Amino acid sequence: MSKDTPIPEIDQLVQRAHEAFLTFKGIDIKRRAAFMHQVADEIEALGPELIRAAQSETNLPEARLAGEKARTVFQWRSYADALSSGNMLDVRIDTADAGRTPPKPDVRKTYVGLGVVAVFGASNFPFAFSTAGGDTASAIAAGCPVIIKTHPGHPETSALMATAIKTAVRKAGLPDGLFAEVRSDGFEGGQHLVSHPLVKAVGFTGSFAGGKALYDLASKRPEPIPVFAEMGSVNPVFLLPNKLEHAAEETAKQYAASLMLGVGQFCTNPGILAAPNHPGLDRFLNTLRSQIIEAAPAPMLHAGIASAYAKKKTELLSQQGVEVLASVAETNTEGHGHAAVATVKASQFLANEQLAHEVFGPFGLLVIYDTADEATAIAEALDGQLTVSVLAEQDDIKNNERLIQALTDKCGRLLLNGFPTGVEVCYAMQHGGPYPATTDNRFTSVGPDAIRRFARPISYQNWPDEFLPNELKDANPLGIWRTVNGALTKEPAPRG
Amino acid sequence: MSKDTPIPEIDQLVQRAHEAFLTFKGIDIKRRAAFMHQVADEIEALGPELIRAAQSETNLPEARLAGEKARTVFQWRSYADALSSGNMLDVRIDTADAGRTPPKPDVRKTYVGLGVVAVFGASNFPFAFSTAGGDTASAIAAGCPVIIKTHPGHPETSALMATAIKTAVRKAGLPDGLFAEVRSDGFEGGQHLVSHPLVKAVGFTGSFAGGKALYDLASKRPEPIPVFAEMGSVNPVFLLPNKLEHAAEETAKQYAASLMLGVGQFCTNPGILAAPNHPGLDRFLNTLRSQIIEAAPAPMLHAGIASAYAKKKTELLSQQGVEVLASVAETNTEGHGHAAVATVKASQFLANEQLAHEVFGPFGLLVIYDTADEATAIAEALDGQLTVSVLAEQDDIKNNERLIQALTDKCGRLLLNGFPTGVEVCYAMQHGGPYPATTDNRFTSVGPDAIRRFARPISYQNWPDEFLPNELKDANPLGIWRTVNGALTKEPAPRG
Repeated sequence: MSKDTPIPEIDQLVQRAHEAFLTFKGIDIKRRAAFMHQVADEIEALGPELIRAAQSETNLPEARLAGEKARTVFQWRSYADALSSGNMLDVRIDTADAGRTPPKPDVRKTYVGLGVVAVFGASNFPFAFSTAGGDTASAIAAGCPVIIKTHPGHPETSALMATAIKTAVRKAGLPDGLFAEVRSDGFEGGQHLVSHPLVKAVGFTGSFAGGKALYDLASKRPEPIPVFAEMGSVNPVFLLPNKLEHAAEETAKQYAASLMLGVGQFCTNPGILAAPNHPGLDRFLNTLRSQIIEAAPAPMLHAGIASAYAKKKTELLSQQGVEVLASVAETNTEGHGHAAVATVKASQFLANEQLAHEVFGPFGLLVIYDTADEATAIAEALDGQLTVSVLAEQDDIKNNERLIQALTDKCGRLLLNGFPTGVEVCYAMQHGGPYPATTDNRFTSVGPDAIRRFARPISYQNWPDEFLPNELKDANPLGIWRTVNGALTKEPAPRG
Repeated sequence: MSKDTPIPEIDQLVQRAHEAFLTFKGIDIKRRAAFMHQVADEIEALGPELIRAAQSETNLPEARLAGEKARTVFQWRSYADALSSGNMLDVRIDTADAGRTPPKPDVRKTYVGLGVVAVFGASNFPFAFSTAGGDTASAIAAGCPVIIKTHPGHPETSALMATAIKTAVRKAGLPDGLFAEVRSDGFEGGQHLVSHPLVKAVGFTGSFAGGKALYDLASKRPEPIPVFAEMGSVNPVFLLPNKLEHAAEETAKQYAASLMLGVGQFCTNPGILAAPNHPGLDRFLNTLRSQIIEAAPAPMLHAGIASAYAKKKTELLSQQGVEVLASVAETNTEGHGHAAVATVKASQFLANEQLAHEVFGPFGLLVIYDTADEATAIAEALDGQLTVSVLAEQDDIKNNERLIQALTDKCGRLLLNGFPTGVEVCYAMQHGGPYPATTDNRFTSVGPDAIRRFARPISYQNWPDEFLPNELKDANPLGIWRTVNGALTKEPAPRG
């Protein structure tokens, strides 16, 4: 079904995308936002064939896909609204002062798109982080054309989403180079895209190996370009003593649910839980065990992911000091993910860095610590993470200040008494943590601030009103918040 | 005088800086800003020995150094004010909604420092872009300790500035690891710093070769880190026909002044001017010639810069089609920079990319174009630039829409009827252009937004008020602007 796009055709698509950029970057935020709502309308209008295609290509259940479709539409709409509110442009105006020595110029700053963006979609979110997903929506919001490298796991789903975007482009009267698909089941097409001189940024969601390879390729180009690779993590959960003692069973149930959600196929899956050797631990472990062994195995996204999961799980379980707590029996269910939880002592965890690696699927490693110092040592030994969760009562927090400070340095999102699966699409979301969770932790890939990845500031010095972009004009015709001479205001900017 | 810091001592300094980070990052923006004002006070209090040291080490005139000292103090104060106003934190709060399915969590986002920052100062701004310069001030504002790799061209100046910062650190009761100097006249010390696992970002102002080497080193680390290298550019000026016809003499005088300011030793020096073969060109050239030949040669920063300038100028003048318009006689003045201006036809400029390279010093290349299309071809062939200037009347702008669009894509700051030397320190300033002008054009190195280079967002999910940083607390105790549920406000944030 999926036929690789020939290299000369990729070159043509990039060239057309670049030409579209020259038009699109000049279109003001209100019209760009209206186009994004049009894309959302077209996605909403896709009929049951979308869910059917995705179900057959990803094994994800219908209800989950329906929710993910709604989330995808919400991403387009909320990013469009953040754009048209002006929030994303962060306009700054410093007006002239001719009387100063030397005379102070009039300087006004806004954001423009970087140029053509190459997006590599994820297998585990065929809607929300693939063809019409968050990277595509945020690049378009920033004023950038997008070339999507279609995920080979769901080509039909991708084609349907691409049609929705293309229909919106046509209806909005925008240049049709604004969005294009490239199919490549191997590496060649994607590498060619990332190496193309007219491609100016890359969005990627997937494995560490894939993201790091693109980062390396992009940083070795004659003109290096930014790569925003979200590469997952083990999302450690730290359970503290009082919480364990008073809520062992409830916490075990919640952890099991988060661990097994979506057959563990989330970049925010909580793969490691550090628990104290303290009253309540047996109750916690017993409850967790019963939750896991009762779980029915479910099909994973595709057979390759299921076999990689089985292999990594086996490797991890064979490490010194790792003991199985609970494991779903491997029945005759090929392609399914069988949940498992194991325990290891903190000292052994700290001595073997392989134990901290991600096992993509419903596998949890419980690291049992004896003292607060040992918990802090675990925290300090961690790689960068998308999220860290703390399960604690008020006294636990007060007794573990150093631990919590150490955890803050390791993640992009710090949760209290919650689990990391379920990433809210909102302004305050930071989905991006220190390396190796992502390649650039100064940005998020979820929420309207994701737009900022694909834009750069530009200052206009001493330009008269008529030649300025609308957001910089004296009268503030877009009615947006602007920082004028250091103060936020919606008032017109005075000419000096 | 300057003795290299031994490698084991560098390791100790980085370790102490990291320990200082653990304290400093938790200090709220008001106290951090107060510390920055203290640094400004200490710099102001430095006596005439500072100017004397800088004069003897850089050959820069006293008035220029006095101005640069004031600018340096202003950078610390204005970045401190931007910090304490909350503008830099861009706080976002999305409150909980327990009634939603699934329940919406409380998510709050602020910025924290990246960690220890290594700063490489510039030779041409011994105050404003060196030891106590903009990179140091913005890293400190972001909550990061700084290790400065002292510029070997001005060690005494650097030592005096370092003393000012250290005095402020002591008076503020902050950990003394917060700021340290490393001396290394070769590459070893700097490379060791950039490779150190506890160093999390790099600021650099200098040559392309130097900046690119640090970028490559940083991107090949086991944990890649961001490098903000400002590497200069030729800052092209585009003179359009009506402007030429009506203001030939005045424009020539202004161009000559900008070209020769500070013996051409600015990263914003306008090294290329594109002029139309149009009525007025002879008057423009004649005036420019007389301005240049009347100029007295002046000492450059050091003998090495002067000889590199002379060599590059000679190389460029030997290129095919390049004709000298005016050249200051090479009198018996070693270490001085002798201004020169040459002309070349657009067709020859376009055929030889060497002509677009920077000649650091008071050298200008005039590229003479015949048609608007040729001007656009020059624009499209340009590398990324810090600035582009357009000299134009209103009709010129209207007649050259495509040219101006192309120029917008090439720079971080676009000026109209002005010259790029003199970079205003203000919110709206963008000092950073597409590669190779800088390694990351999504950020500025001048103005308070420079702080953002050294911070990363972090989200707190479901944390009670008492454990949140002050800027995220419900009551808004810092009184700053925050985006609460999508709207800017100074009001308290409601708990859901």
